[in-house]
Amino acid sequence: MKNDWTPVVEDKLSFGLWTVGWRGVDVFGGAVRDELDPVEAVERLAGLGAAAISFHDDDLVPNDATRDRVLERFSTALSENNITVDMATTNLFSSPVFKDGGFTSNDREVRRYALVKAARNIDLGVRMGAKTYVLWGGREGAESGAAKDINAALDRMREALDTLCAYVREQGYDVRFAIEPKPNEPRGDILLPTIGHALAFIHELDDPARVGLNPEVGHEEMSGLNYAHGIAQAMWQGKLFHIDLNGQNGPRFDQDLRFGAGNARGAFWTVDVLEGLGGRAPRYDGFVHFDYKPPRTEDADDVWETARANMRNYLILRDKVRAFRADPEVQQALAESRVLDLWESTLAPAETLADLRAATYDLDGLAKRGMHFERLDQLALEYLYGVR
Amino acid sequence: MKNDWTPVVEDKLSFGLWTVGWRGVDVFGGAVRDELDPVEAVERLAGLGAAAISFHDDDLVPNDATRDRVLERFSTALSENNITVDMATTNLFSSPVFKDGGFTSNDREVRRYALVKAARNIDLGVRMGAKTYVLWGGREGAESGAAKDINAALDRMREALDTLCAYVREQGYDVRFAIEPKPNEPRGDILLPTIGHALAFIHELDDPARVGLNPEVGHEEMSGLNYAHGIAQAMWQGKLFHIDLNGQNGPRFDQDLRFGAGNARGAFWTVDVLEGLGGRAPRYDGFVHFDYKPPRTEDADDVWETARANMRNYLILRDKVRAFRADPEVQQALAESRVLDLWESTLAPAETLADLRAATYDLDGLAKRGMHFERLDQLALEYLYGVR
Amino acid sequence: MKNDWTPVVEDKLSFGLWTVGWRGVDVFGGAVRDELDPVEAVERLAGLGAAAISFHDDDLVPNDATRDRVLERFSTALSENNITVDMATTNLFSSPVFKDGGFTSNDREVRRYALVKAARNIDLGVRMGAKTYVLWGGREGAESGAAKDINAALDRMREALDTLCAYVREQGYDVRFAIEPKPNEPRGDILLPTIGHALAFIHELDDPARVGLNPEVGHEEMSGLNYAHGIAQAMWQGKLFHIDLNGQNGPRFDQDLRFGAGNARGAFWTVDVLEGLGGRAPRYDGFVHFDYKPPRTEDADDVWETARANMRNYLILRDKVRAFRADPEVQQALAESRVLDLWESTLAPAETLADLRAATYDLDGLAKRGMHFERLDQLALEYLYGVR
Amino acid sequence: MKNDWTPVVEDKLSFGLWTVGWRGVDVFGGAVRDELDPVEAVERLAGLGAAAISFHDDDLVPNDATRDRVLERFSTALSENNITVDMATTNLFSSPVFKDGGFTSNDREVRRYALVKAARNIDLGVRMGAKTYVLWGGREGAESGAAKDINAALDRMREALDTLCAYVREQGYDVRFAIEPKPNEPRGDILLPTIGHALAFIHELDDPARVGLNPEVGHEEMSGLNYAHGIAQAMWQGKLFHIDLNGQNGPRFDQDLRFGAGNARGAFWTVDVLEGLGGRAPRYDGFVHFDYKPPRTEDADDVWETARANMRNYLILRDKVRAFRADPEVQQALAESRVLDLWESTLAPAETLADLRAATYDLDGLAKRGMHFERLDQLALEYLYGVR
Repeated sequence: MKNDWTPVVEDKLSFGLWTVGWRGVDVFGGAVRDELDPVEAVERLAGLGAAAISFHDDDLVPNDATRDRVLERFSTALSENNITVDMATTNLFSSPVFKDGGFTSNDREVRRYALVKAARNIDLGVRMGAKTYVLWGGREGAESGAAKDINAALDRMREALDTLCAYVREQGYDVRFAIEPKPNEPRGDILLPTIGHALAFIHELDDPARVGLNPEVGHEEMSGLNYAHGIAQAMWQGKLFHIDLNGQNGPRFDQDLRFGAGNARGAFWTVDVLEGLGGRAPRYDGFVHFDYKPPRTEDADDVWETARANMRNYLILRDKVRAFRADPEVQQALAESRVLDLWESTLAPAETLADLRAATYDLDGLAKRGMHFERLDQLALEYLYGVR
Repeated sequence: MKNDWTPVVEDKLSFGLWTVGWRGVDVFGGAVRDELDPVEAVERLAGLGAAAISFHDDDLVPNDATRDRVLERFSTALSENNITVDMATTNLFSSPVFKDGGFTSNDREVRRYALVKAARNIDLGVRMGAKTYVLWGGREGAESGAAKDINAALDRMREALDTLCAYVREQGYDVRFAIEPKPNEPRGDILLPTIGHALAFIHELDDPARVGLNPEVGHEEMSGLNYAHGIAQAMWQGKLFHIDLNGQNGPRFDQDLRFGAGNARGAFWTVDVLEGLGGRAPRYDGFVHFDYKPPRTEDADDVWETARANMRNYLILRDKVRAFRADPEVQQALAESRVLDLWESTLAPAETLADLRAATYDLDGLAKRGMHFERLDQLALEYLYGVR
Repeated sequence: MKNDWTPVVEDKLSFGLWTVGWRGVDVFGGAVRDELDPVEAVERLAGLGAAAISFHDDDLVPNDATRDRVLERFSTALSENNITVDMATTNLFSSPVFKDGGFTSNDREVRRYALVKAARNIDLGVRMGAKTYVLWGGREGAESGAAKDINAALDRMREALDTLCAYVREQGYDVRFAIEPKPNEPRGDILLPTIGHALAFIHELDDPARVGLNPEVGHEEMSGLNYAHGIAQAMWQGKLFHIDLNGQNGPRFDQDLRFGAGNARGAFWTVDVLEGLGGRAPRYDGFVHFDYKPPRTEDADDVWETARANMRNYLILRDKVRAFRADPEVQQALAESRVLDLWESTLAPAETLADLRAATYDLDGLAKRGMHFERLDQLALEYLYGVR
Repeated sequence: MKNDWTPVVEDKLSFGLWTVGWRGVDVFGGAVRDELDPVEAVERLAGLGAAAISFHDDDLVPNDATRDRVLERFSTALSENNITVDMATTNLFSSPVFKDGGFTSNDREVRRYALVKAARNIDLGVRMGAKTYVLWGGREGAESGAAKDINAALDRMREALDTLCAYVREQGYDVRFAIEPKPNEPRGDILLPTIGHALAFIHELDDPARVGLNPEVGHEEMSGLNYAHGIAQAMWQGKLFHIDLNGQNGPRFDQDLRFGAGNARGAFWTVDVLEGLGGRAPRYDGFVHFDYKPPRTEDADDVWETARANMRNYLILRDKVRAFRADPEVQQALAESRVLDLWESTLAPAETLADLRAATYDLDGLAKRGMHFERLDQLALEYLYGVR
C-alpha cells in the first residue's frame, strides 16, 4: 500500500460541528474545553482534508440575537474553505422543553414547537446546501411502561414526518430525511430503536421515498447488533441515505469513540459494505460522516488529532478492503465457501416447488460439506493486520 | 382478585411440543430427561388447561417410517383432548445439512432442500389445522464478515417467502406466515435480528399481507430491546400474527425461562400491550404461545409444573393489568402525565405548519412542567407487587 | 400484610444528597430543575421517614466562601430533624482536573490533590458523624489500552488507600472505607470494575480490615452480573460495609432508577440476601442507602415522590421476603430442592478423600433426581406478585 | 516484520483436546463432525507447531473399559511428537449427575462424587506431566434466587479447594490449581463469575498460594469487561497461573471463536499485557493456551486451519506489540501522556499527607493539561493495522 491516507475532497468525508465542538459535559462532570468557533471548525477540518460539515441549529446559531452575523461568517468560511454542508439536523433534545421528546412528547404544545423548530432549521439547512436532513429522536421514548403509548407515539412520529415531507415538497426543497435510530440513552428506551424498526416505520409514511436512514455504528452496537449487516439491509431496501461512523465497545453507554477505535473488525466490514465490494451489492456514494466525541481527556489541540484519525482510519480500511477483494486467493476462498452462489436464485427460472419436491437430496453428502469460512475470515483478518 | 388462575380453553394458551419435550442437551452436556411422547404432551397440557399445541416436523414426525402411525395417534389425542394446533413450523436448524442455514445457506442444494422440507410440513400443519406457520431462521447468519453476502441472503430469503406464499395461495391454504426474529445464537449474527428488521423485510415481499411476525420475549431482550415496545410497533403495523412468551435476563445466552421469570416488569407491560389496554391501541386476539425450556435441573414431573406456571403467570398478570387500567387513580395519573394527549394529533384538522410557525410558545413554562411519570410507574409497580 | 410501608428511623433508610438534588444534566441536555438547598433535602427526607443522609464535599460545600455558614445550617437541620450522616464521600470526578481520575491519574500533581481533597472531606464526614467513607473512582480508568498501566494504577490505588487508612488511624477516627465498583461510564473501562475485583484488591492493602465495599445495584447489572449473588459473596467475605440501592435494565448506560424499578425480581432477592433470610447467612445491619436519580422528566415535587417510592419499595419487598421465608410450603420446597443440604459439609468431620474414593456412587440414580427449583422459584414469584 | 509466524516449541502454545475435538453439538443441533482420535490431535497439533495439549478426563478417557489402552497410545503419541501436557481438568458439567453443579451441587452425594472424579483425574494429570489443574465450575450456579444459597455454595467451594489442595500436598504433587471464572451459560448465573470474584475467593482458602486463575477472554467479555485489565489485575496479585485465549463479540452466548476473531483491539492489548511490555509490569511465562471451538460450519480439515490461525494470530500480535513498544515515537507519546509517571509514588519517600495538604495546587493549570491519549491510541491502532 502506497498511501499516506490524507483525505481529499473526493473522499467526501464530513463531520458534525458538534463533534469537534464537544466540550465534555457528561452526567458526572462539567466542560473541559472552551467553546469552539464554527469558523475555526470549518477552517481546521478543511485543513485536514474534510469535504463537508453538518450542524444542529443549536450548534451553529444558539442565539437569535447574533444569528445573522454567525451565518454570514459561517457561509464565508464554507466558501473560502471549499467545505460543503452535507447535512443539517434539529436539536430536539437539549432544552428542558424536550425532556419527554419533541415530535412524540406527551405535551402537545411541545410537539407543536418541535415542528416549528425543525421547519425553521430545514430552511436554514437547505439555504446552506444540505441535501440530507437528519432526525435523531434522542428524547423520544420512556423510562417506564405506562408513560408512553407506543401506538400513539408512532402515530405522532408519522404525523411529524408527513408534515415535514409535505413542507419540503411545497417549498420545492431538494432534501431528503434520514432517521437515526438509537436503542437507549438518554431515555430508558427510545422509539425506533434500531435500523430495522426505522426501516419498517418508513413504509407507513405518505412519502416513503423521501425518507431513509442515517445509522450510527455505536447505536447498533449498543444493542449487540452487527452494524455492517444492518446497513447492508438498509442498502438492500434503498434506504442508506447518510451514515454516522464512530466507535463503540458493545452494550454500554454511548461511547462515540473515533472510527476505528472500538470494534476494529466491525469497522473493516462496515467499509467493505459501504464500498459495495461484497458481490453484486450496491455501493454507498453519499458523504462519509463522522459522529464521535473527542474524549474528555483531550485538550483543544488533541481534538484535531482525533478528527484526523477518523478520516485516516477510514481511508486505511478502504485500502484494505479493496486489496482483500482484489486478491485472487480471497476470490478462490469465496468461491470455495460458495459465497457467490448465494446470488443464484434457489429455483431456476422455469422451476417450480413441485420440481424441487420431486427431486432427491443427498443429505449425507450435504451434511459433510464444510463451508471453509474460517480460512476466508483469516484472510480478511490478515488484511486487517496488514500482514498480507 | 378472586381467581385461582387455572386456564380455560377461551384463554387460548398454547405450547410448542418441543418445549415440554426438551431433553436438556446443550453445548456443555447431554440429555437429562427421556423422550416425551407427543400424545402425553397433548394429554398433560389439556389437563392443565391449555387450548393448543404447536410443532416442528422433527418434533412430531422425526422418522418417516413411523410417520403415519404417529400422526394418527397424535390426531386422535388432539380431538380427544380438545386441543387445537395453532401453529406449525419447520426445523431448518438441527440437521448438519443446515449448518449454514436453510433458505439462505450458501449451498444452493441445501436451500432447495429447505424449501422442500418447509413445504412438506406446511401441508402437515394445514392438515392439522394450523392457521399460522412460523419461520425461525436460527441458522441463517454468519460468524464472520465475508462468509455471507447480506444482500444476496435477503434476496434468497425473499425468494423463499415468495415461493412459499405462492404455494399456499395455489393450494388454497388458509395459513399465514410469521417470521421469528433473533439476533444471535446459534449463529454469531442472524439475518433479520429484531422485530424491526423482520417488519422492514416483509414490505419487500410479493404478498406482504400474508406475512407477519412471531416475536419472542427473550430474543428481543437478548439485544437489550424493550419487548413490549417491539410488539406495540408490530401491532401498529398490523403484523403481530403470533407470539412466543418466555423469560430472559438481558443480553446473554438464550435462556428460554418460563414466562414471568426473567424480566418481571417487562412481562407486566407485555401483557398490557397484548390486552390492548393502553389507550386506543389494538388488542392481540391470537393464541398466547409459550416457547420456553424447562431447565435442565428439572425432572419429568417438574416439567409439568413449569408448564402450569407459564399459564398461571400470564393469567395473574392479565388480572393485574386489567385492574391497573381500571383504577380511577391510575386514570387520573395518566391524565396528569398527558399520556392520552399523545393520541391527539399535533396539528388540528385545519391547521398548517405555517399556523404553528406563526404562534408563540411559552418555552419557560413548558420547560417547568413536570411529567409525573414516576408516580404513574409506581402505581403500576404496586399492581405488580399486589399491594393495591 | 398489614402495613402502609411508611418508614421509621429504625428502618435505617438513607439517601445521597446528590440524588434528590440531581438537576438533570446529562450528555445530551442541561439542567431541568433548580438547585436544591441541602437543608430542604434534610427536612423533606426526614418528613418522609428517612433516617440518614450522605454527601460529597461538592454537593454540600461547593464553595469555600460560604462553607462555614452552610455547615452550620446543615448541622442544625440534621439535629432538628433527627437525621444522621451515615456516609460521606469525595467528588473526584466532576472537576476537569480529574479528567483522568484522582488517585490513579497519570498526572502526579492531580493524584496529590485528590488525596488532599479526600482527607479534607474525611475530616468533615467524621465531624458530621459518618462512620463509612465511600470511594467511588468513577474517572479511574481509560478509553484505550496504552493510556493506563493497570499494574501501576493498582499500585497507586493501594497507595491512596494505605495513606488514607493511616490518616484515619492517626486521627483516631472511627470510620471505615467502602469502595464502590463500577465497570464503565464515564470512563470506557474503570479500575476495580466489579464487586469481585474490589474484594480482591482489598486483600493487598496494609489495613484490609478497615476497607470494605459499597456495591451499587445498577453498577453490577451493567455487567449483566447478579447483584444478590455479588453482595452475598461480599457478606461471605465480611465486606459489605454499605450499600447503594437503585434500579437498572441490564447492560446499557447507568440508569440510576429508583429501587424496585428495573430488575424487580433481582430487587426481591437483593432484599432477601440483605435480610439474611436465606439460610445461615449473615444479615446486613447497616444503613440501606439509595443512590438513584429522579428522571429528568420529573419536576421538583415529583422528586419527593420518587424518594418516597424507593423507601416504600424496600419495605414492601422486605415484608415479602419475610413472608416467603416463613411460609411452611416454601420451607418444604427448599427441603425438597435440598437447598439447606448445601450447608452440610461435603466430607463428614472424620472423613477423608480416600474414604470418598472408596465408596460407590449410584450415578443413574443421581442423574434422575430432579432438583424441583422451578416450583420453588414460582413460590417466590407469587410472593413478588402478592398472590400468596 | 520478517516472519512467517509458524510457531516453535519455545512459543509454548497449547490447545485443549476438546477444542479441535468439538463435534458441534449445541442447543439447536447435533454433531457435524466425527469423533477425533486424541492421538490424531497430538500429531496434528505437533505438526502445526504447538508445544502442549490439555484434556478433561471425559475427553481423553471417557470409557473405563478402554482407559489403559487409550492412555498408552496417548502417552506414546505425546513423547513421539514432543508434546507436553501443560494442564488437565475435570469435566463436572456434561453428565446429568452434575445438572446442579459438582462441588456446590445441592445434592451432597453429587458433591462427594465430584471430589472423587476430580481427584482421580488429578492423579492422571500429574502422571501426564500437567503442572496446572484447571477448575471450571460451569454448572455451579443457579437459574433462580432461592435455588442456591450463595454463602453455603462458597463454603462448599472452599471446602472442595481445601480438600484438593490438601490432597496434592499429601501426594507431593507439583501441581497448582487455576480457577476459570465465567458469568453465565450454561447456568443462568455462575458462582465466581469474573476474574475479580475468583481472585477474592482465593484469599479465603487454606492454601491460597497454590490456587490462581485461568481466565478466558470470552468469559470476561461476555460481561462487557476488559480482559486485558482483568489479567493485569490477576498478574498484579500474582495469580495468572494459566490462560485461555479465544474470541468473543461482547455480551451474548459463549462464542469460543478463534483468538483474533472477535475483539481484535482487545486481543492486541491482551498480548501486550501477557508480554509484560507495558511498563514495569510482570511478564506471563506460562503456556499460551487456546480454548475455542471450530465453528459448526467447518469440516474436519477446516478444523486444523482454525488451530493454525489461533497460533498465527498470537504470534502476529506478539510481533506487533513488541514493535509498538520499541518505537521511539510511541515512547515519546507515552511520556507526553504521563503513562510512566503513574509508576511514581504519589507521596515522595519522606512525604506525609500533611505535607500534601500544606501545598497549593494550580487547579486551573491542571484542568487545562490534555492527556493526549488519542494520539497514543492511534499509534497503537496503526500497529494493529500494520501501517507503521
